[in-house]
Amino acid sequence: MSEHISLAVIKRLPKYYRYLGELLDMDITKISSKDLSEKMGVTASQIRQDLNNFGSFGLQGYGYNIELLYSEIGKILGIDRSYKAVIVGFGNIGQALVNHSLFSKRGVDFICAFDKDQTVVGTELNGIKVEDISGFKDFLEENEIDIVTIAVPKHSIGSIEKILYNSNVKGVWNFSNCDLNSLEEKMHVENVNLMDSLMTLSYKMNEKSILEKCNVKK
Amino acid sequence: MSEHISLAVIKRLPKYYRYLGELLDMDITKISSKDLSEKMGVTASQIRQDLNNFGSFGLQGYGYNIELLYSEIGKILGIDRSYKAVIVGFGNIGQALVNHSLFSKRGVDFICAFDKDQTVVGTELNGIKVEDISGFKDFLEENEIDIVTIAVPKHSIGSIEKILYNSNVKGVWNFSNCDLNSLEEKMHVENVNLMDSLMTLSYKMNEKSILEKCNVKK
Repeated sequence: MSEHISLAVIKRLPKYYRYLGELLDMDITKISSKDLSEKMGVTASQIRQDLNNFGSFGLQGYGYNIELLYSEIGKILGIDRSYKAVIVGFGNIGQALVNHSLFSKRGVDFICAFDKDQTVVGTELNGIKVEDISGFKDFLEENEIDIVTIAVPKHSIGSIEKILYNSNVKGVWNFSNCDLNSLEEKMHVENVNLMDSLMTLSYKMNEKSILEKCNVKK
Repeated sequence: MSEHISLAVIKRLPKYYRYLGELLDMDITKISSKDLSEKMGVTASQIRQDLNNFGSFGLQGYGYNIELLYSEIGKILGIDRSYKAVIVGFGNIGQALVNHSLFSKRGVDFICAFDKDQTVVGTELNGIKVEDISGFKDFLEENEIDIVTIAVPKHSIGSIEKILYNSNVKGVWNFSNCDLNSLEEKMHVENVNLMDSLMTLSYKMNEKSILEKCNVKK
């Protein structure tokens, strides 16, 4: 077994988890690897290969026991644990996260938020209080925080990156539209880069004509 | 040249574009492939291979002309064009997108939003008016819309998916936390699945202990 699993595999696990959850919601308890693969648009051998990275699941001639597989993938994804999280930047994105009940169901508890805007500091949303960003560094020293979610604009990122670099935070969920290369050496960073995502969409929408043009040029 | 470029390559292009833009902002006009690769944490040969999919860029012994490369990658990403876009679901995510000035700089113009909540229907944010969702189907028939952004909760997705399936929309930017398999046959779908992203982070944070446990089990 390798010491790291490829990112492509990891990225498929949450999808498996979601689909199995949906089947459970419909009271379906067993599924053949063929049916699962058709539902998900992934080949059956891909699913088997992905899961084999983590042990053996499923039985020949029976398929998968959905409840068991769901629970095992949940453990692999680490969502049987709980995480203390804070949000830095309480704009629309920060508020969307606090309004989303699913995160706490997956073990992520936002305990407070930080912002520099004095019109939001001191306010509360869904029981999450917004603190002044000036107290962020001390807060991280005094509290064991697992995940820091960054939802500030690019020009505010420098000082936050520095505070995080000197902290014991384990994971950063980064919505800032810029890479946090210095932090990636020290902790786990997961980027949600909306601008990159939108550019990927515009590429896909134009791929055919773009590749034709490249062919002409060559 | 292949007819499709692998998704891994496509996903790196916006990153190249961002880094080159940052260099331009610093008035840097030339860079060697070695320096560019160090800055970006990608090997120089990876960058060369990626770009070679689209033609030849850069000069031996000189490196890259940043302005030229920036402009060429922009064209590859299709952001030299403009797109008419609408948002379905005007909660925090929808509002965050309208508040973000960078999207229009990349050619994406949100012309209006749709929601079913009568307390937001008729309101306006940054010049974007919120229309009643009941008019969404007719609107798509009467207007040529390139991109529909979906930012509604899972339980509201069914009827919207059906309307889109019968439309001429070219791209869907999907924030709904569920897959839109039926649409993927007909148009380009780019998913921003926050729950999947958070599970990927929790996996990374626990990978070492998870793989150790799997080893013990095997």
